[in-house]
Amino acid sequence: MKVSGLLLVAAQLRGVLALWPQPRSLEIGSAALKLAPTFDIHVNIAHPPSDLEDAVSRTKAFLRNDKLGRLVVGRGASDHAAVQRARSLSSLQLSLTHGSAVKSITDETRLPIGTRSEGYTLHVPADGSPAAIVANSSLGLLRGLTTFSQLWYEYAGQVYTVEAPISVTDSPAYPYRGFMLDTSRNFFPVSDIKRTLDAMSWVKMSQFHWHVSDSQSFPLEVPGYTELASKGAYDPSMVYSPSDVQDIVSYAGARGIDVMIEIDTPGHTAIISAAHPEHIACAEASPWTTFANGLLASVARMFPSSVMSTGGDELNAECYAQDPDTQADLKATGRTLEQALDVFTQKTHAAIRAEGKTPAVWEEMVLDHNVTLGNDTIVLVWISSANAAAVAAKNFRLVHGPSDYFYLDCGAGEWIGDDVAAHSNSWCDPFKTWQKVSMMVAERVLPSHRGKQSYTFDPLANITKSQAHLVLGGEQLLWTEQSGPENLDPIVWPRAASSAEVFWTGPGGNLSTALPRLHDLAFRMRQRGVKAIQLQPMWCALRPGKCNLDS
Amino acid sequence: MKVSGLLLVAAQLRGVLALWPQPRSLEIGSAALKLAPTFDIHVNIAHPPSDLEDAVSRTKAFLRNDKLGRLVVGRGASDHAAVQRARSLSSLQLSLTHGSAVKSITDETRLPIGTRSEGYTLHVPADGSPAAIVANSSLGLLRGLTTFSQLWYEYAGQVYTVEAPISVTDSPAYPYRGFMLDTSRNFFPVSDIKRTLDAMSWVKMSQFHWHVSDSQSFPLEVPGYTELASKGAYDPSMVYSPSDVQDIVSYAGARGIDVMIEIDTPGHTAIISAAHPEHIACAEASPWTTFANGLLASVARMFPSSVMSTGGDELNAECYAQDPDTQADLKATGRTLEQALDVFTQKTHAAIRAEGKTPAVWEEMVLDHNVTLGNDTIVLVWISSANAAAVAAKNFRLVHGPSDYFYLDCGAGEWIGDDVAAHSNSWCDPFKTWQKVSMMVAERVLPSHRGKQSYTFDPLANITKSQAHLVLGGEQLLWTEQSGPENLDPIVWPRAASSAEVFWTGPGGNLSTALPRLHDLAFRMRQRGVKAIQLQPMWCALRPGKCNLDS
Repeated sequence: MKVSGLLLVAAQLRGVLALWPQPRSLEIGSAALKLAPTFDIHVNIAHPPSDLEDAVSRTKAFLRNDKLGRLVVGRGASDHAAVQRARSLSSLQLSLTHGSAVKSITDETRLPIGTRSEGYTLHVPADGSPAAIVANSSLGLLRGLTTFSQLWYEYAGQVYTVEAPISVTDSPAYPYRGFMLDTSRNFFPVSDIKRTLDAMSWVKMSQFHWHVSDSQSFPLEVPGYTELASKGAYDPSMVYSPSDVQDIVSYAGARGIDVMIEIDTPGHTAIISAAHPEHIACAEASPWTTFANGLLASVARMFPSSVMSTGGDELNAECYAQDPDTQADLKATGRTLEQALDVFTQKTHAAIRAEGKTPAVWEEMVLDHNVTLGNDTIVLVWISSANAAAVAAKNFRLVHGPSDYFYLDCGAGEWIGDDVAAHSNSWCDPFKTWQKVSMMVAERVLPSHRGKQSYTFDPLANITKSQAHLVLGGEQLLWTEQSGPENLDPIVWPRAASSAEVFWTGPGGNLSTALPRLHDLAFRMRQRGVKAIQLQPMWCALRPGKCNLDS
Repeated sequence: MKVSGLLLVAAQLRGVLALWPQPRSLEIGSAALKLAPTFDIHVNIAHPPSDLEDAVSRTKAFLRNDKLGRLVVGRGASDHAAVQRARSLSSLQLSLTHGSAVKSITDETRLPIGTRSEGYTLHVPADGSPAAIVANSSLGLLRGLTTFSQLWYEYAGQVYTVEAPISVTDSPAYPYRGFMLDTSRNFFPVSDIKRTLDAMSWVKMSQFHWHVSDSQSFPLEVPGYTELASKGAYDPSMVYSPSDVQDIVSYAGARGIDVMIEIDTPGHTAIISAAHPEHIACAEASPWTTFANGLLASVARMFPSSVMSTGGDELNAECYAQDPDTQADLKATGRTLEQALDVFTQKTHAAIRAEGKTPAVWEEMVLDHNVTLGNDTIVLVWISSANAAAVAAKNFRLVHGPSDYFYLDCGAGEWIGDDVAAHSNSWCDPFKTWQKVSMMVAERVLPSHRGKQSYTFDPLANITKSQAHLVLGGEQLLWTEQSGPENLDPIVWPRAASSAEVFWTGPGGNLSTALPRLHDLAFRMRQRGVKAIQLQPMWCALRPGKCNLDS
């Protein structure tokens, strides 16, 4: 059965091949196939990079330890007879296409956004002959291994599929598939970040946007600027040291995830005043360009990524207008606040470009201010999904992170202590469900899907064909006013997988057929130690389609 | 300083004595006092019950292991000099008032609701002479120990208070302070339930309402009816055995918590059809009185509590009207559906009364149906807080559990898979914040609190003075369509502590002063292994009042 692209309904209603994200092209059969007791994964590369070998080891461990019973009544008991008779698969062969350079996953992951090669083909024959993943890159092989690990269920000690042969030809629709974590409002130990990177890698995310500091705390130990953390962290135990950073970026890189650090300037820096009151006005930034340049350059040197965010959201112009130091400085230089902001941004961007990095900024820097920006600057859209088109119209590359779709923190009330509205509202109500990411604009539903609940945020809404190349992808975001290590997993997973699929597979999915696959992902995450929440009663998870309105 | 009852503002703004629930009467001083290295707790009872001795051991472990720095900038550094000079407390003495019978906590906890003695006095002198808890009962001593364990902070290895002397005279405003957990929609291992019981005991809750089974699964192994679990549980590993039940009720009893089991009849029993299709119509109950009686009696014998809920919510009359078996039965007996329901309820209630238990029912059984109920029946109000007055008007004792205040599952979207509204709404939107429980009806705010954000759900709204004795208390509830072990702690704590305070301390609190105490509780819970969420950025938690609107 051929089920390429969007025409997956029949296969998925069987609730079996529960891949997430859905591959761009998939052919499946209906034969049972089990892993041989001696099953192994062979890397057919003369000198394989060690992070690829590690990825193979992790995949083998998942195959052994997932022990996921199929999500149907009986959990695979009805497959047992067929599996007993089935052929055994003894190996998976990994190969690079002829002439591909052998580079590590890590090195390939750190290439500029849009230049990484993540595609792969995967073939699992039904007759027991070796399965194969072929790619142009180690990174592509990693993505293929990730798909391979999702093919298998376990029953009575046997690891099997009932959908062989399986052929996948896959590559992402968008290069930036991200998750943003705020580690300033509340702190997260390194182990939480690494576990999050694991979960991100299982859904083929490519970008960890680390909003490391903000007005509340500065938990990053920056060489040459260590006083920022020693005075601005919540506690000496709540600091990311340079070796922690190295640990995190290595862990991420080996999993195909690039780390974009963000030092949010010139707003959202009040905590720097704990170490340097002379630099911060209005609990925000007064003229402090030299200091900021040095800090950003030092941070840039800690992170191997080709991108770095200088932030730029929520500048409080009213505050600067009333700050004597700022006003004196503007008077001395003969500049308006907008002109001073322009100078500040040009200098900070020059500082990080001098470290070989492309800057990223929040949308206000192009929509609300007249700041001179390099035309390769990446713009993060957050205020509203409606603003993406305006950013594209200015010919900037953009990443979707709109609060009306992708903010994971909304809907749990207000964190202001005595707010009279706190009994019901957060500023970005309501809670963003996994289905919300999935509610496609009706007009854009493909003809074959009319009348069905379509699954996807539309990355190209109101964006012209000629601007489409500017859309790099998107990310779901966790601002942590009301979050910490205690609820990190349940508030993020499996919800953040929604956008991972939208930006890998592209728009056009379907709620009813996505749900069984999302259950499968959540169960698999839990088996692997990530506390993804239950989306439904287990009764429903075991009976795909039975808890739908139309059932 | 005398701060009895509601006049706690001054003491609480200092952010120091962070008790939860707030004692009914409290006097504090301003002297530092530290625990001596040899500090011990002595039970001045000839033959102390073993569960009281266990409670003493747990308290000593909390004093050693909480290691909670005071929630202020510096985490207690500013107390250090005073603490160095402070007197040392070498012992806490526990005594029963003269003539009190020595019974175990467990036995006292299992007395009927409203007849338990939970009061105590606690005195901690400033001069280092022994502290004392005096009560009429082991259960009262437990409540006093719980308060004592919340008095102390740790800095540089010293466990101390800066508020000595401390005098507490305390007893609950309402006897039923509960939490309900649904273990049918999704399953929770025994360890999760025990951890929940621990957290409940730390806020002096008295009642665990265990909604063990529902239409989705029947995870309780009932002697004589084991086929219900073997065919109706999600998995053989997802069953509560009789020894699990014994473990849970013993664990609860030793912590001052009575376990009210609920077998929700005649609706919410569809899963019984997995074992007995002959008894269940409409995925609900057809005439099956004899079977139900035997089942309920057997369940009743597993639980030592004096109460048991037979449920009775959401009866689907339309379904019965269209069920041939039900209609045939009604025709044969010459009864209307209402009459048949009356007979069914009278018989099932007689069955559990024969086991020495008082029945509890959901509100529909008195507000929507004409069922003959014993006048001691306890009615659980869930549909709306507005319905409590109608229940009281019918002269039934009631427990508040209204969905508009106390449902912990609301606001995370719909669990129906393909619901077009699922992108935003749950049936009981919005999310119920801890402040929501706290938003007192303006008219009832005490004169001294006008203009402040008052803290409390009002248990006596629209209930006459002569009916007030009918209000037993209340509970927060977790229905688990979208919950499981993964998010149990973060979705429940510290939110469920809100009602624990409302029903212990009574109405009249204040949001601004409650918040620092609730932070303190949440931090303490995390130190003790319960994953209570962050309510604010840690910056705010360390600066009480600074993240308020009026700051």
